[in-house]
Amino acid sequence: MVHPLFSPEVKLMLDEKNAAGLREFCESLHPATVAEALDDEFTPEQIWEVISNANIRTQASVFEYLTPAQQVLMAEKARPQMGALLTKMSHDDRVDLLRRLPGRVTETIMRLVDEADRKDIATLFQYGENTVGALMTTDYAWLPGTLTAAEAIDQLRQQAPDRETIYYIYVLDDPTRRGDGSLSPRRLLGVVSLRDIILAPRHALIRELMETDLVTLKHSDDQEMVAQLFARYDFLAAPVVDDQFGLLGIVTHDDVLDVVRAEATEDMQRQGAVGPITGDYLEASFANVWYNRMKWLAVLFLLQMFTINAMASFESELERVFFLLAFIPLCLSVGGNAGSQAATLVIRAVALDQVHTRDWLRVFRREMLMAASLAAALGVLSIARTYFLTPDNIERKVPSGYFWNLNLAVTFAVMGICLTGAIIGAMLPLLIKALGRDPALMSAPLIATLSDVLGIVIFFNIAKLFFWRMLVVPPA
Amino acid sequence: MVHPLFSPEVKLMLDEKNAAGLREFCESLHPATVAEALDDEFTPEQIWEVISNANIRTQASVFEYLTPAQQVLMAEKARPQMGALLTKMSHDDRVDLLRRLPGRVTETIMRLVDEADRKDIATLFQYGENTVGALMTTDYAWLPGTLTAAEAIDQLRQQAPDRETIYYIYVLDDPTRRGDGSLSPRRLLGVVSLRDIILAPRHALIRELMETDLVTLKHSDDQEMVAQLFARYDFLAAPVVDDQFGLLGIVTHDDVLDVVRAEATEDMQRQGAVGPITGDYLEASFANVWYNRMKWLAVLFLLQMFTINAMASFESELERVFFLLAFIPLCLSVGGNAGSQAATLVIRAVALDQVHTRDWLRVFRREMLMAASLAAALGVLSIARTYFLTPDNIERKVPSGYFWNLNLAVTFAVMGICLTGAIIGAMLPLLIKALGRDPALMSAPLIATLSDVLGIVIFFNIAKLFFWRMLVVPPA
Repeated sequence: MVHPLFSPEVKLMLDEKNAAGLREFCESLHPATVAEALDDEFTPEQIWEVISNANIRTQASVFEYLTPAQQVLMAEKARPQMGALLTKMSHDDRVDLLRRLPGRVTETIMRLVDEADRKDIATLFQYGENTVGALMTTDYAWLPGTLTAAEAIDQLRQQAPDRETIYYIYVLDDPTRRGDGSLSPRRLLGVVSLRDIILAPRHALIRELMETDLVTLKHSDDQEMVAQLFARYDFLAAPVVDDQFGLLGIVTHDDVLDVVRAEATEDMQRQGAVGPITGDYLEASFANVWYNRMKWLAVLFLLQMFTINAMASFESELERVFFLLAFIPLCLSVGGNAGSQAATLVIRAVALDQVHTRDWLRVFRREMLMAASLAAALGVLSIARTYFLTPDNIERKVPSGYFWNLNLAVTFAVMGICLTGAIIGAMLPLLIKALGRDPALMSAPLIATLSDVLGIVIFFNIAKLFFWRMLVVPPA
Repeated sequence: MVHPLFSPEVKLMLDEKNAAGLREFCESLHPATVAEALDDEFTPEQIWEVISNANIRTQASVFEYLTPAQQVLMAEKARPQMGALLTKMSHDDRVDLLRRLPGRVTETIMRLVDEADRKDIATLFQYGENTVGALMTTDYAWLPGTLTAAEAIDQLRQQAPDRETIYYIYVLDDPTRRGDGSLSPRRLLGVVSLRDIILAPRHALIRELMETDLVTLKHSDDQEMVAQLFARYDFLAAPVVDDQFGLLGIVTHDDVLDVVRAEATEDMQRQGAVGPITGDYLEASFANVWYNRMKWLAVLFLLQMFTINAMASFESELERVFFLLAFIPLCLSVGGNAGSQAATLVIRAVALDQVHTRDWLRVFRREMLMAASLAAALGVLSIARTYFLTPDNIERKVPSGYFWNLNLAVTFAVMGICLTGAIIGAMLPLLIKALGRDPALMSAPLIATLSDVLGIVIFFNIAKLFFWRMLVVPPA
């Protein structure tokens, strides 16, 4: 994948007004490559000047590959040209563009497209974000089932230029008239692949070739479901139908790949306690990033306040065994770490549809066993560490004969906190899921915060056990 | 996507030895649906019995959709049948299967396939894990450039049944003979889509229709690069070539979707400080999960030891201002949270190719500004919180006239630690990347651990400033 950098060459052609060269540049390269060459150094006007040399279909393709920010700027600059361009754009991409434009620009542009396109845009516009409806496109290829394979290929030759894909062809019924006189969407009877049409005898009927065991989507389905469906069935596209099995549109593999990447980004951000920030990290608006970080930092800060109350409730112990306090950050961190691990595994397993809320008891048992054996190993580490590596000045403060009490208190605290952290980390995401929210909301920092509060209580209670005389029996 | 559960029905047909029913079941449904119905309740022998009723091509398709564990069990049970089945499987899937089988089983099976398939398997077997080579398949469709569109369609009709896809057709040169007499792979001249062939006049030559501005991969390229390529260009497939532009194989969109999901899982696990655990969460081996969690817990535990040294180095302060200690868990957590956020954003931006190591100064400046303004807001929260919500028993311990010193000490500590955490979180992943490792290794818990150690030093130094008389000037 080695591509020379075309930008300087394009600039030169612009300066020289070399129309033939610019046309060749636009039409001979992949539109993604052309779009990439027209980077930030080009003004919207210059980009219009470059692509105007190509045919309108190429213009639309290149336009689709520009960054969303570039598209918006360009749409605002050259409104008359936008009408023709919109007609040739993918039906899903043009709706995405119009969603991003200011209302008045959208209105002006909508007046430039013809009735059919305007209707199509309005239909796609109505679906909610992150739903299948917002992802689907209406420029699918379709045929009646009564054609022969040879006739079908002739038909497809007509349709191909304006279709997102002609590799899956949807076989549709005649439209029926609704009670109010309007036509309902044509019902989906089956799907046939271009591969099967090519393989079939010329006179085979499409309705005999088509697959009728269909996997379909609803426009209200969540994006995440689509990803699982495509991963399981290796589809190129999947049909979206209404309750009467009327075909509303199709979702194609390239959009699914984008969804999978976007959903993974969102889940990772949630787990890192950042409200979802879409778009490029270096380009994202400062205020937006600030808000989406601050809201989580504030929530965590307020929750973390309970650690002060937990500490304060052991105030008399604090005063008497301050040498123990040097071990608090270590002990608390174990809970955060074990919790972060468990939460990560469970949250991802839920996202990949491997674990459901009904599995909670299996998850609980598995995590109990896992956390117990992790805690045991950490306990061994802790005994060794406290024995060999306790700083001298701390050791000197431990009352004589109490060194092993210190060691065991720290070790049991580490083990107890590890167990607590892992169980919280594994269970809370499932609880959130059961409440109908995204389990990724249970971020690693949130788990760590909750486990800190519990950790302090565990720490001091274990310390009381091992320093009974000093902490519980009142001084004489 | 509503599918009845077929399993009980299949069991009944098995009991009744209903061959026609089982054949119908296998051949009329999507192979993924068939594979799903043949779940854990079926023994490998039963699965063989079910699919043996279908034609060998369907058997191969269903087999490809079984879980890896099922495939291995089945391959061990029915070796004679495996030869025929392997011949019909996708070339990439069958190599994946053979990789998982014990050596002796692989050897036995390899003797059952013919020479050409054996050679193909051996070729794909040699490529390293996580490389494009391990992902690619050799069952691509290809044509010489001298055919007409009509001839090409006839040719494709012959090739179609054995090809992973016929929607992209690779146009190849004649093979040339190497110095040692062997044939080198045919050189890739261009790619033509089936769509373009269908659209073209019958007599148009393939070499005139083909696209020659090709985006190609090398077999040694990393998987992650493929994901970025497919996301950018919306490909169905991409060719893999050697240094002489000889075509080695192709990578298809369905494999890329699997890669994107697997890479996201791996990155999330790394960020959660879990060594990568592949496969289903509930099915993964206990020992494997234990090891991949324990190694991180141990590393973090050992690193976290430095918090004890940090605390110990402020031993005399610990003793004198223990009322301050109640605020330590809070202050330290701020660093972990701010660091986790910054690390998450930077690591994901690197994975999505939005940020490169050369951008470090831009990232640094942005994070400095961001962290400073987050710290300022947290400072306000901290002042308010300490003022209104400090527990009474702690407040009573603060020497008279020192309440505002306490408040400001905690607030400045919170701000300093927030700043430090965010900078560490943003910079360390870039440093790791610059050293050629996966930036996701800088997990949130690791960032939190490092920021804890620094946090303690910051906390006590700021405390010294505000409690100068009590902490620094020795008691009279």
